[in-house]
Amino acid sequence: MKRVGQMIRLRPEKLEEYRKLHAAVWPEINAKIKECNIENYSIYYRDGYLFSYFEYVGEDYEADMQKMADDPRTQEWWAVCKPCQQKLDTAGPEEWWADMEEFYHLD
Amino acid sequence: MKRVGQMIRLRPEKLEEYRKLHAAVWPEINAKIKECNIENYSIYYRDGYLFSYFEYVGEDYEADMQKMADDPRTQEWWAVCKPCQQKLDTAGPEEWWADMEEFYHLD
Repeated sequence: MKRVGQMIRLRPEKLEEYRKLHAAVWPEINAKIKECNIENYSIYYRDGYLFSYFEYVGEDYEADMQKMADDPRTQEWWAVCKPCQQKLDTAGPEEWWADMEEFYHLD
Repeated sequence: MKRVGQMIRLRPEKLEEYRKLHAAVWPEINAKIKECNIENYSIYYRDGYLFSYFEYVGEDYEADMQKMADDPRTQEWWAVCKPCQQKLDTAGPEEWWADMEEFYHLD
């Protein structure tokens, strides 16, 4: 199992919109996430930052991430979410959510 | 089960020290964490911020947190970790790690 921690900024004027979107994520989006072998997925917010934690339980992370990116309904979802977010200055050109470094883990 | 997401800043000059400390956390600290009913505990770092995620599986969160705080070895551990950290400007007077708001969760 691969644990992933990522961060991104949330635009202050979009805080309420983003909170509402994530209190009622479209069912097809949740279904696609699970189909792509992601489990125990949480998103937290504080002080302008979003943090996401999830566990990848499949065999090919890159392929599953591509499968999610290719899904038309997911693309619609991202089209409403992305304007709320702002990538980190240090994120790479291909990154949106930026991968964090795991410093510690205890089962 | 209660999921907890928290954040704090890491002092830039202490990055390497903190990384090394957490690559080899004292065994008594790990044991005490588990004894206090915390599971699946991860700490991530990026861009000056630490994010922690853990799952509390006990019956009395406040009591278990107090039990950890009262443990002399944990106090020694915190005495080496805390100088590496800097609490958020928005953290309350009693907070060190600052609780984040859960915006989303998918099992």
